[in-house]
This record gives sequence, C-alpha cells and structure tokens, in this order.
Amino acid sequence: MAKDFTSRSEDYSQWYNELVNKADLAEHSAVRGCMVIKPYGYAIWEKMQAELDRKFKATGHQNAYFPLFIPKSYLSKEADHVEGFAKECAVVTHYRLKNAEDGSGVIVDPDAKLEEELIIRPTSETIIWNTYKGWIQSYRDLPLLINQWANVVRWEMRTRLFLRTAEFLWQEGHTAHSTKEEAIAETEQMLDVYAEFAEKFMAMPVIKGVKTANERFAGALETYCIEALMQDGKALQAGTSHFLGQNFAKAFDVKFANKEGKQEYVWATSWGVSTRLMGALIMTHSDDEGLVLPPKLAPIQVVIVPIYKGEEQLALISEHANKIKSELETKGISVKYDDRDTHKPGFKFAEYEFKGVPVRIAMGPRDIENGTVEVARRDTKEKETLQQKDIANKIDHLLTNIQENLYQKAIDFREENTFKADSWVEFEEHLSKGGFISAHWDGTPETEDKIKELTKATIRCIPLNNKLEEGKCVLTGSPSKQRVIFAKAY
Amino acid sequence: MAKDFTSRSEDYSQWYNELVNKADLAEHSAVRGCMVIKPYGYAIWEKMQAELDRKFKATGHQNAYFPLFIPKSYLSKEADHVEGFAKECAVVTHYRLKNAEDGSGVIVDPDAKLEEELIIRPTSETIIWNTYKGWIQSYRDLPLLINQWANVVRWEMRTRLFLRTAEFLWQEGHTAHSTKEEAIAETEQMLDVYAEFAEKFMAMPVIKGVKTANERFAGALETYCIEALMQDGKALQAGTSHFLGQNFAKAFDVKFANKEGKQEYVWATSWGVSTRLMGALIMTHSDDEGLVLPPKLAPIQVVIVPIYKGEEQLALISEHANKIKSELETKGISVKYDDRDTHKPGFKFAEYEFKGVPVRIAMGPRDIENGTVEVARRDTKEKETLQQKDIANKIDHLLTNIQENLYQKAIDFREENTFKADSWVEFEEHLSKGGFISAHWDGTPETEDKIKELTKATIRCIPLNNKLEEGKCVLTGSPSKQRVIFAKAY
Repeated sequence: MAKDFTSRSEDYSQWYNELVNKADLAEHSAVRGCMVIKPYGYAIWEKMQAELDRKFKATGHQNAYFPLFIPKSYLSKEADHVEGFAKECAVVTHYRLKNAEDGSGVIVDPDAKLEEELIIRPTSETIIWNTYKGWIQSYRDLPLLINQWANVVRWEMRTRLFLRTAEFLWQEGHTAHSTKEEAIAETEQMLDVYAEFAEKFMAMPVIKGVKTANERFAGALETYCIEALMQDGKALQAGTSHFLGQNFAKAFDVKFANKEGKQEYVWATSWGVSTRLMGALIMTHSDDEGLVLPPKLAPIQVVIVPIYKGEEQLALISEHANKIKSELETKGISVKYDDRDTHKPGFKFAEYEFKGVPVRIAMGPRDIENGTVEVARRDTKEKETLQQKDIANKIDHLLTNIQENLYQKAIDFREENTFKADSWVEFEEHLSKGGFISAHWDGTPETEDKIKELTKATIRCIPLNNKLEEGKCVLTGSPSKQRVIFAKAY
Repeated sequence: MAKDFTSRSEDYSQWYNELVNKADLAEHSAVRGCMVIKPYGYAIWEKMQAELDRKFKATGHQNAYFPLFIPKSYLSKEADHVEGFAKECAVVTHYRLKNAEDGSGVIVDPDAKLEEELIIRPTSETIIWNTYKGWIQSYRDLPLLINQWANVVRWEMRTRLFLRTAEFLWQEGHTAHSTKEEAIAETEQMLDVYAEFAEKFMAMPVIKGVKTANERFAGALETYCIEALMQDGKALQAGTSHFLGQNFAKAFDVKFANKEGKQEYVWATSWGVSTRLMGALIMTHSDDEGLVLPPKLAPIQVVIVPIYKGEEQLALISEHANKIKSELETKGISVKYDDRDTHKPGFKFAEYEFKGVPVRIAMGPRDIENGTVEVARRDTKEKETLQQKDIANKIDHLLTNIQENLYQKAIDFREENTFKADSWVEFEEHLSKGGFISAHWDGTPETEDKIKELTKATIRCIPLNNKLEEGKCVLTGSPSKQRVIFAKAY
C-alpha cells in the first residue's frame, strides 16, 4: 500500500493529501470545497467528540441546537462580526424549484424569492444571542452554559481536506455571565479544556496564549488559542476561546436584573474546535508509512491477524485469538480480529500499518504451540514475542506507553524546532527552517502586518506563561517587554 | 406551573404547543419555520440518538458525513425524487455579501453568483450515490452500510415544533447491496430496529407496514413504515425504511463487478428517523399536568427534593440524600439532588412534574428519623413511603415498572381506538371519533385520493402481519383481499 505513497521529505503537502485519501479518512466531494468524511475518519472524529462532550458536561455545560440559517440583518448587528464574515457567506435567496418551461429540467422559481436573504451560519453568535434575549431576565438565569455540535459554512476559495473546507463540523460553546470576571474565567477554563484534550488525547503539545488584535475573532475583545507545531514546521491553530465582552449583548439588547434590581448588559464567551483537529492529529504523528494514531483516539486499538494454512489451522488460531480478543475487550480495549480469507497476512499488515492501528498481534501455528503472540507497535515499528499469559495487562500497558511516547516525541520535535531570534537576520534564518520563533515585537499592528508581508509569518500568540523581559523588536528595533511566538501557519 | 396550562380536552393542539414551550423542550426561532431545541429537549434527543446509534452499529453500520449542499442538477437525476422535493428546497445562489454603497448595511454581492445553484439537502440520496460511484467497483465492496446524523431542510409553510419544521435533525442510513433480496432484508431489518426502539425505549407501540404507492418516498420502490397513534386519535409516521431498487444506482451509474466479473447495477436502501420522534414521544404519554417521560429516555430519572427548615436540617437531609444519590448512580440511574434555597419544595414538585421526571423522592426531618423516603411516580401520580434500606433496588424496579406501565397504557389506548369499518357509514362514524380504522380498500390510487379528499384520512400502511380476507372496499364496494389502516395523520 505504501509503495506509491509520497514521503514527507519529497512533498509534505502531497504526502498529507495522499494520506487522507488512502487511509480512508476523507475525500473531496462533487461540491466545491465540501468534503466527505469517510467512515474511518468519522470514527476518529466521533472519539474526539465523545471526549470533548464529556469534558464540556463535566464543566457544567448542556447541549442545545440553534437554526442553520441566520437572517442577513442579524449578521450586521455587530459591526466587527459582519466585517469578518461577510466575504465568505453562503446565501439562501429562494425556497423553491420548478420545472423549466422548455423541459430542460428544474430551475429556481423566481416567484419563491425570500423577503430577507438567509445566511448559512458561519458561526452562531448572532442567532444565539438573539435567542438568549428571551431566556435571560435576571441574575438567576445566569450563567447560561450552552454548547452546540453543528455544521458551519465559510466560503473558502482554497480548500484542503480537514484543514480548510467550505463546510466543516465543529462545536461552538456560547455562554452568558453576570460579571466580566466570570466570563473571563470561563474563557480561560475552556482553553484549558482544549489544551488538556490536545495533550492527553491527541498527544499533541500546545502553547496556550492570546491572539494579537489583528488575529482576534471578529467581535471578540480577547481571543485565547492553543497553537501546535506540525512536522513541516508550520503552526496550526487548534482551538480558540473568545471573551466577547458585552458586544453581542449590546447588539441584541440582552440585559439582566442584577441582585440590586438594576439592569445590566450580559457578558459573553464563545469557544470552538472543529474537524480541523483531524488535520492537526494527522500531521502531528503520521509518517512515511501512513497514519499514526494515539491509542486514545484510535477506532481500532489492536488488530489480530491469523497466519495460517488451511481451515484446520485457522480454526485453532481463531479459538486462541477470540479468547485474547475478549480478554482485551474486558479491559475496554477495542479489537478487530481480521480472519478474512480474501487477503494475505502481508496485505493486512500493510493495511493496518497505513491506517495507524497502534498495536498489531500476529498469531501463527508456532505461536499456538508455544503459547505466544507476536506484538508489533505502530509508532516505533518494534516487534516482540510475548507469552499469551496475562496478555491483556501487557497490551494495556503497551497502549499507555504508545500514547506517552507519541506525546514525548511531539514535545521533543517542538523543542528542537523552537528558536529565539534577536535580530532580523536570525529571524529570517530560523524562519527559512520552519518552527516556532520566539522574538520581540514592538506591539503595533503595523509591524505585525509588515512582518507578515515580508515573510508570511504571523504572530501565533502571546503565550500565557510569558516572562517579561526587556528587548527590541526584531523588525523595528523599538522597545519590547516580552517575546511573542511567530510562525508560518496553516 | 400547570395553572395556566391548557388541558388536552380543551384544545389538544394548544396543549401540545404550550407543553413544548413550558417544559423547555423547544421554541420557534426568529427564522421562519426553524426551531431552537432547548437543552432539556436536546438532552432527550441525545438519549434517543445514543440508543439508535448503538443499534445501528450493532447491525454493522458505520457513520460518515456527506455535504450539506446538493448541486441542483443532481436532484434532477432521479425523476420521481426531484418531483417529490423540488417544491420545498432552500436554494443557495450566492457566496458573498458586501457593503451597500449607500451605507445601509450588507447586501448580497451580485458578482458572487454561483454557476450552479446549490440545494440544502432535503435528504441525501443524490449526493451520497454520486459518492458511492467512487467507492464501489466489485462485489467485495458490498454491502456498504452507512449512516449519517445530520440536519436537513424542507421548506414547510405550516410548521409545528418537532412535528414539522423547515430544518430538522435526523439520521439517514444509505446502504448498497449486490442483490435485491439482500437490500429488501436490510430494509426490513432497519424497520425492525426502529420498531424495537419505539416500543422498548419510547414505550410507544407501532404498527409495522408498507405504504401505498401514493405515500411512498420519492424514488423508492417500496416504503416500509412504523405508525403510532397519538392521544387525539391522529396517526403519526414515526420512521420509514425504503427499498430503492436500482433507481439511484441507475441515475448515478453505480455498477459493480459480480463474482463472475459481470457488471451489474447496485441495489439500494435508505432509512431515517428525525426529531419528529420528540413530538411522538410527547403526544404518546404526556397529560394535563405536563410532560411524561419513559425512564429510558428521561435525562433525569430521579429527582431528590429536601424538605427542611434551616441550615442544620438541610445538612442532615443532604447527607442522607447524597448517599441515596450515589447508590442510585451506581446502578446507572441518573439523579438530580435539588437543594436550591431559592425555591420552595412545592415549586420544585410542580416543576419536575411538569418536566416529566419519572420518580420524585422527597426527604424531610421525619424521614431521617424513621429511615424512610417519600417516593412519587409521575405516570400514575401514586405516592408511597419506603424504607431507605435497599432503596436503589426498589427504585430500579420502580423505573422498570413505569417503563412497562407507560407502554401498556399506550397499547390499551391504541386497542380502544382501533376500529373495523365495513361500510362507508361506519368508516365516517369511526373517523369522527379518531383512531385507526381497519377497512377494505380496492387497491387503486384513485379511491385512496377520493377518500382523502372526502375525509382527510389517508392509508397509513398495509400492515406487514395482515391476514388475507375477502371483502369489499368501503368506498367503491369493489373486491378487496385485505384490510389496510386508515387514519387522519400528523
């Protein structure tokens, strides 16, 4: 399977596209910019959803569902918001088709024009805050902690599977609070939830930080983010959490009576992650042999492949394999026993390797005689022969070990590819190699724009754990009090 | 809470609308025909989803995701299909907004017109079969067993929360098979899955049957359905499973090489249930005091309300209540302990009654002394005092009992409201009272149309377990070989 597969060093972008296709994760649809998420890819997304949903509920959030459509006038109510999204809106103008009079097929019925055009939600702040107006009267109604799993559409001209598509799947949290402090605490809490998910489940280290004004969400006072580093040295924004201040409350006139009975505007946050995480997951761990999945997100954690000649051997091996399978399943490990007779073991090995199954167990007649199994791990490609006795515990430990190893490997990669630059020469030199660059910046949007224009690098974030230090901006030499993280980004 | 609540006998339709609103299930949004599903309503839908998803996976299906948009030309490829959906399509014609030159806000950018209009999926057969063309080459690729959880849009002019909305949530299964027999078996299997879900989880009895040609899904050769009877005597179609023959395979040219290497068209099914089930659930069990939920779908199965004066009593009661709560949770029962000091017990009792929480436990100081609790069940409104000892088992049995009681009550209601009609006079007489009418029909679409025109009643289905018997059509007197089920329907 890996034979006609481009390596990362040959062409990283091509490697990614081929991997997504050949590992059956997703493909381009007939509709421009929209993807089909295939069953194997969707199964990974479901595992992500399940854990995120668990974390949202554990922090007091409830799910709800709001309309796909947003009246055009709503989008305009928050000035920065419409400015940010107007250029990429899919617009519904009609509600009926009819047969063409010349018999050439169906056409849009001109008599079925909507009075007001509807926008397919690019994000739901406006329709949700319009709804919250009816739900919030008093401080007793707060906080309102709601999340939505949904599809959204942003009309992108240059699309890439998972990373940038016109339609994508995501969750969007929208919360309402009685005080500024509580809203900021919520924004930070959800950033921590995302960071913990990225590190503990995706095995992907992230830097927590805040965006500069230039990179803020359209309508936010502060955008917090988690930033990850991909194997090609480019950054990927993996999740954002926005402190929206009272902007949407004012735009939609959402007030509450405080404990003293005085009317105040409500404070807001919103936060989201999307199917983009699939792209991040793929690019963090995978290699020239295909997908590599952290065990906690692998739809199949262990595959068992029998090696046999004839029905009799297969029956014997199957007996042992199914026993091991059920022992593993008792521990909550997901196992596939692949006894298809239409494919040879070598083909199966290659297929599961390409699909990133963390652990492969092979069992032949000699293993049955000796009470052993051959265990191969996907991450390091190491193989060992283990006794079948106590195999479930051994595999359980191995999965934990693989999860930790992938995370450590990604941490090491990020450390090796994070540089300090104290001059423009150093900045350009490091940038040409890729990676995160920690450098001083004079704090102005103009300098940020200029650097982007010159190098395509953007400020990924101002890290939350930054130490203050005196320094000079790498471009202008003006004084700076802290370093920020630059990189080229997806 | 129930004071200003319309009763079923006063105005059934008004009762339903008020119930959906006041029980915090859903509300109309600012967008015509689109609903907001509120957290409590969504939590019930999530329980439905979880069980259906489990059943789909247990029968070998995998989830995937296909685009929201369908090119207009795709819809036209299957003649009956476009005929069925053209009149209710939301159409995207543009992909950008821009600022109006007169500064009046944003307008649709006339320069951003799509070459081909996109339809928001009313159902996904066309985009999915266009995709399957790339996935199916050989009999080895079959069967393809895929399900999608998604939102769809059908532009309805007269909408009702959950029952008929422009946007709704659903699942749609789309499977591909190498033989007609296998496809029919799949269609029937999924109907059984729906029926089992309706009866065992929703506690809602259903009749399994097939639709007449008039009522078939646009593009199907045979539509199987489950039909339930609501408390006002109207029928509700709760789920459908379609045998699509080779219609979509032919429209999208999807062939496979059979074992002999010969090219054949693929056989198809599709099947779906939607948020409409929420409406069915509400109308099957609820009463003049509000929502009644079967325990298996109740987000909160047991609520514990403390009855106390002062902090000291509360502390003592809470200690016992939390112990009971954790004992119940160990059994997998979802429990809420409501110790809010902002509301009196009477208010809480009314609230949980209205929201259909199956079991309420009240605990006061005397209960602590006596080692008892007061247990009230929502379905029969009976109360009893139980010893705290072994309370988890008692409540567990009670929940099972409530689930069964609701189902039996619904069965009884249906039996009392199912009539045989052997003449037009009898037919009209029974119809005026509501319910299912089992009657002979001459098998022609013309007669079916005529009966609908005269009475608004439709043939809900030809029951699968029908006995053949000689008879005469109630309208025309022409010979008939079996009875069918008529009713007015949602």
